[in-house]
Amino acid sequence: MNQSYPSVLLEEAVNEFSKLPGIGKKTALRLVLHLLRQPEDQVTSFGQAVIRLKQEVQYCTCCHNISDTDLCNICADERRDHRLVCVVENVREVMAVENTGQYNGIYHVLGGLISPMDGVGPSDLEIESLIGRVRNNEVGEVLLALSATMEGDTTGFYLYRKLANFDVKITTIARGIAVGDELEYADEVTLGRSIVNRIDFKG
Amino acid sequence: MNQSYPSVLLEEAVNEFSKLPGIGKKTALRLVLHLLRQPEDQVTSFGQAVIRLKQEVQYCTCCHNISDTDLCNICADERRDHRLVCVVENVREVMAVENTGQYNGIYHVLGGLISPMDGVGPSDLEIESLIGRVRNNEVGEVLLALSATMEGDTTGFYLYRKLANFDVKITTIARGIAVGDELEYADEVTLGRSIVNRIDFKG
Repeated sequence: MNQSYPSVLLEEAVNEFSKLPGIGKKTALRLVLHLLRQPEDQVTSFGQAVIRLKQEVQYCTCCHNISDTDLCNICADERRDHRLVCVVENVREVMAVENTGQYNGIYHVLGGLISPMDGVGPSDLEIESLIGRVRNNEVGEVLLALSATMEGDTTGFYLYRKLANFDVKITTIARGIAVGDELEYADEVTLGRSIVNRIDFKG
Repeated sequence: MNQSYPSVLLEEAVNEFSKLPGIGKKTALRLVLHLLRQPEDQVTSFGQAVIRLKQEVQYCTCCHNISDTDLCNICADERRDHRLVCVVENVREVMAVENTGQYNGIYHVLGGLISPMDGVGPSDLEIESLIGRVRNNEVGEVLLALSATMEGDTTGFYLYRKLANFDVKITTIARGIAVGDELEYADEVTLGRSIVNRIDFKG
């Protein structure tokens, strides 16, 4: 649909919003009109929060997670186990693991997964620096916490091959029936793997 | 879920996005991380487009539509019929009517609909200025193009009562079976009104 906007300013704002993933022109217009109804200081703080984030954000020099400082809060935390490194795709997965409250090690953020279809190869990811951390004997265990997708599996196999010759324990998060899932609705691959990788019952 | 963001800047940007309608924390984080992956000039132009819109946008002094100038393009267009005024809720409805290519009059943007549930009364809308346009004999026909909802009907009845004593023709857009709709799936109210308000068949 060829929209004719009554204002160039409006059109520009709508175009900027519609560049975001999953946001079309109609949603973009709805969001922009919502912002227009807000007080000016709120709209300004919205725009400036976005600009400041891009200009001032840093990445942790150790784990490559988003950070406000050279070394992120997690890497700087002395109470954490610095010999245990959880390898994740991105900051979202760091937050997901943190939210479990079950993990006390530190992280290594790859910045993506190997995906030939999207033109993402190993050199586009923070893999060399992970190997560096292992080579320098900083790491006792590498825990791969990658998505159960083709890209996650590919990246996991690649990392395993690269790290296998070092004196480091390589583990991966368990795959199986999700808590709360009914068995009859589980897909056969997941159910099959959960049988092959069965664990001792702890009563 | 109590999220722990690795960066205050990130958290602020996510909070700003999640204030938008229909955008929760997870979607906000996805949008913010998308922006982080874009070049800095693109992110800056996104933020500035929003700030500039709010700071510089104007509203047409005649029809109250969003505009870059005192008088909007439509009101300033001499080729349009200035005696025919289409009353709409907002700029989105102006764009919808414009997109039909079937309308050659001008507009009056109410800025909302009467909705006691949301605390929106007649005085919150641009109704007095519409009555002023009619009183000054600027208008020959008022075409009500309001949503077929309770709020739209309420607003329509209110405007009709206010305008009935003036020498002005008051019309409303036709309600009926949408083009492409199958009759058996039409709701009975719509079908009933389309029978009561039947029109001559033009072969």
